Amino acid sequence: MGDRSHARSSPQAVNDRRAGREGLTGAEALLETAAGRGVSVCFANPGTTEMPLVTALDRKPGLRAVLGLHENVCTGAADGYARIARRAALTLLHLGPGLANGLANLHNARRAHSPIVNVVGDHASWHLPFDAPLTSDIAALAGTVGTHHEIRDRAAIVATTRRAVDDAHERGGVSTLVVPADFQQQVAQEPPRDERPRPAPARGIDIDAIEQAARRVRDAGSRAVLLIGGDGLSCTGQRAAARIAAATGAVLYSETFPARAERGGGLPPIDRLPYFPEAAVRALGHATAVVLAGAREPIAYFGYEGTPSRLAPQGSVQPLANVGEDVERALVMLAELVGGKDPQRYAGPPTAGLPTAGLPTAEPEPDAVLTGQTVGAALARWLPENAIVSIEGGTCGYPFHTASANAVPHTVLTNTGGAIGQGLPTALGAAIAAPERPVIALQSDGSGLYTAQALWTMARESVDVVVLIAANHAYNVLRTELARHGSAEPGPQATRLTSLGEPAIDWAALARGFGVPASTAATVGELRGAFTTALQARGPHLVQMMM
Amino acid sequence: MGDRSHARSSPQAVNDRRAGREGLTGAEALLETAAGRGVSVCFANPGTTEMPLVTALDRKPGLRAVLGLHENVCTGAADGYARIARRAALTLLHLGPGLANGLANLHNARRAHSPIVNVVGDHASWHLPFDAPLTSDIAALAGTVGTHHEIRDRAAIVATTRRAVDDAHERGGVSTLVVPADFQQQVAQEPPRDERPRPAPARGIDIDAIEQAARRVRDAGSRAVLLIGGDGLSCTGQRAAARIAAATGAVLYSETFPARAERGGGLPPIDRLPYFPEAAVRALGHATAVVLAGAREPIAYFGYEGTPSRLAPQGSVQPLANVGEDVERALVMLAELVGGKDPQRYAGPPTAGLPTAGLPTAEPEPDAVLTGQTVGAALARWLPENAIVSIEGGTCGYPFHTASANAVPHTVLTNTGGAIGQGLPTALGAAIAAPERPVIALQSDGSGLYTAQALWTMARESVDVVVLIAANHAYNVLRTELARHGSAEPGPQATRLTSLGEPAIDWAALARGFGVPASTAATVGELRGAFTTALQARGPHLVQMMM
Repeated sequence: MGDRSHARSSPQAVNDRRAGREGLTGAEALLETAAGRGVSVCFANPGTTEMPLVTALDRKPGLRAVLGLHENVCTGAADGYARIARRAALTLLHLGPGLANGLANLHNARRAHSPIVNVVGDHASWHLPFDAPLTSDIAALAGTVGTHHEIRDRAAIVATTRRAVDDAHERGGVSTLVVPADFQQQVAQEPPRDERPRPAPARGIDIDAIEQAARRVRDAGSRAVLLIGGDGLSCTGQRAAARIAAATGAVLYSETFPARAERGGGLPPIDRLPYFPEAAVRALGHATAVVLAGAREPIAYFGYEGTPSRLAPQGSVQPLANVGEDVERALVMLAELVGGKDPQRYAGPPTAGLPTAGLPTAEPEPDAVLTGQTVGAALARWLPENAIVSIEGGTCGYPFHTASANAVPHTVLTNTGGAIGQGLPTALGAAIAAPERPVIALQSDGSGLYTAQALWTMARESVDVVVLIAANHAYNVLRTELARHGSAEPGPQATRLTSLGEPAIDWAALARGFGVPASTAATVGELRGAFTTALQARGPHLVQMMM
Repeated sequence: MGDRSHARSSPQAVNDRRAGREGLTGAEALLETAAGRGVSVCFANPGTTEMPLVTALDRKPGLRAVLGLHENVCTGAADGYARIARRAALTLLHLGPGLANGLANLHNARRAHSPIVNVVGDHASWHLPFDAPLTSDIAALAGTVGTHHEIRDRAAIVATTRRAVDDAHERGGVSTLVVPADFQQQVAQEPPRDERPRPAPARGIDIDAIEQAARRVRDAGSRAVLLIGGDGLSCTGQRAAARIAAATGAVLYSETFPARAERGGGLPPIDRLPYFPEAAVRALGHATAVVLAGAREPIAYFGYEGTPSRLAPQGSVQPLANVGEDVERALVMLAELVGGKDPQRYAGPPTAGLPTAGLPTAEPEPDAVLTGQTVGAALARWLPENAIVSIEGGTCGYPFHTASANAVPHTVLTNTGGAIGQGLPTALGAAIAAPERPVIALQSDGSGLYTAQALWTMARESVDVVVLIAANHAYNVLRTELARHGSAEPGPQATRLTSLGEPAIDWAALARGFGVPASTAATVGELRGAFTTALQARGPHLVQMMM
């Protein structure tokens, strides 16, 4: 009686009743807290221990639920969403195995610095000690990709949810919020009150680093390289970089796998640092100063006998701003310090000996067969204004990126962490974040097969995504790697392990199976027709490019 | 010079040169060691850091490589393989993200006590400190499903491989063997010598437990329940259990999700303990003794408000033999102790109030629509002799299992850990282990979509698997769970989150996309025709059952 009469007389309780929050379940309180902190989308693949949250999604409007058929679709979509929306989505995952299924794209999200909040339902707190079949070590899994926030008490739901969401936004990273089923279902002891998104913390710059970088760039002249990543790849950041290059002769590169880069529309032609270490070492070899603007020190993707891990010449590395700082502002300041006032066009790095050399500059003929080069060159010319291009796989990805310097303005998203199966989910999430923008998924077939289920969610949500599959029926990058390992003529098992033929996968059939209209193209002319149709149609469309 | 001349003069070195092992790479030494310990199959989804192992597969015959398009196909196939072959396969996975992708089915394998050895390539040892994009905490991931064996030195390759394989076999569990790319490529310092599989350690029995169980079973009479799992579900184990039941009146149940159970062909009709706790409590409620024969104490799958975690009445639980012991022998001894000499037919538990009540006993009419009940009853009658049936999903799974007590002899594999996406890969692995046996995958659609890529490997390896998809276009179990959570009428978001319609997935198109012939059936008669055709054809065939 005492507690109850106390609650009745407290002003807060009166306000709560007026606001209808008195009887919120834990699940409702969790969602209301997250929504109040600016979260509006939940990429979900729920199970039994998330049913109160599923029910609450209908009781607490403001959070749009998007179903994925596989958790890695959900986490990859949340990554794509965060890169475009610049805020976290929730994922809703079922216990440890559900989180495990989503880890690969969370690994990529970690490397992209994307804020994501995984909500993982757990067994009822009183049931957990009995080691039921689905029990596993959720904390260990969560720790591999970010921070782990466990709700151990129903009184802690609101505060822990707040912490998980704020942590994701402040760090630019992955938080995992584990909530036992009983706490979801019971009335929350502390209803959320007037949540609002915490203002983004002001991101700093390091003036000393900027001044030091200015001295080194001036001293090095054309032997300076600016390696740009993170927010440095915004329009403002890139224009500042071009002013620096114009004033000093410095060469500009983007990190090899940017989370998000603006591109085209008169932006300077900043190519990606080459993938293979020999080419990257050649690109950087002349440099006495490699200035890091939102990029990490360039490191070889893999270690190969006889090539170094560190790609920049010894002693050349000079930090300007790290990815957590205000990279854009640091670049603008650097431009001012080196006297780069002229927004003149940067001509790009010397191409001799680099993979960009020899790219066709005119649109390929209609009867040209589809290769990485012809697809890249053609797509760069056909791109609709303001498109988002999710690139996964090298076959078309590298040639397109180089060619697209002169395209209309667009945004590029790439696979930041190397866990393949990222391109289709990321395109989905980007389309949910920006329904008004056309989205192109330029996707290699091998990697696309890891998360082909994303096609179904594209169909269900009717997002305007054009999926271009480079169907070469091989793990082509592994063929290259076999050769690098001295297997110029791989044996029968190695050949089969790098082939997606026998039988050839029919992407048009897969797409139709998932409810996505599809067509097949074998020439540039056919691709142009299919691409035009796909762009005009509502909802997703897949084009299988036979290569 | 010293080392080299020493090696030349040592008798072992002479033998090595004769055997051609002198110049083995680490990758070759690893595979030769594993093959020598009885491993003959490798379910592979390799990447750059596994290329020396891929090359070595052709240099060291004896290991058959089977490519999966997703790691969870590989790990699930290794589980199915182990359940039938009773020995470990290798999986070949790419770094942390590759292992992460395979964890869900490794979780199931852990619950199934299946021996599996994951071989995970890592960055070159000298490259690891630079935190290249694909670097992550492999040890933490591996630890969630079993033991972690890291090769830290090329001199340790053979010994560590041996330990990983033996550990998997001895524990009946998952080992993960991490091998940096440079150690794979360099010449192994210690070539393997005359490896041979370590004889399986004699599995013990606990005589005291068996005698105690005998007393309790005799005392309890018809109030005794034998809960049978692990090797207790062999033919011998089940026949011994039936003798016990005949002598004492005890009731027999199989654990709800057995890793492998023999069934039909005159074996006693031992049904699975019901899934939902209310039904399980009803099934066990009369018992004063619940004897555990290779099964764990029965625990509710999920904790529901108002139902207990422990399903057996208090004080009733009596261990007979745990899963690591010789359960079969313990059951035979128990039968002898209670005087169960008569191999008479056990009639099964009382069915009143249990889900098995009301199952049709005759073959359904040809124009009957497909339901879990009609499919289960029909399939039990059509089953080919000696089939392996991989069951995932409840729609047809429970009714089939009950109906199949009177079928021809067959083997049932179920989802032991609840991480869905297990049925198709397990069917694939079982077919690789027993190419002479027909394999049926009785698969619900929702769970099948997690690892539909398994279809492609079935086509490539031309395994005789008939895939029956229960296409009800819903996560039906979640509809039930929503109702249990009080959402009898789910709102629009909850409805969409449990629906696989909008758009309906076309499994026949998906199958064709992966190179598997497919047909669709809507009645028992159509299913019969499609099933007969599928059984007669070489290679896999999928039947979409419209429900």
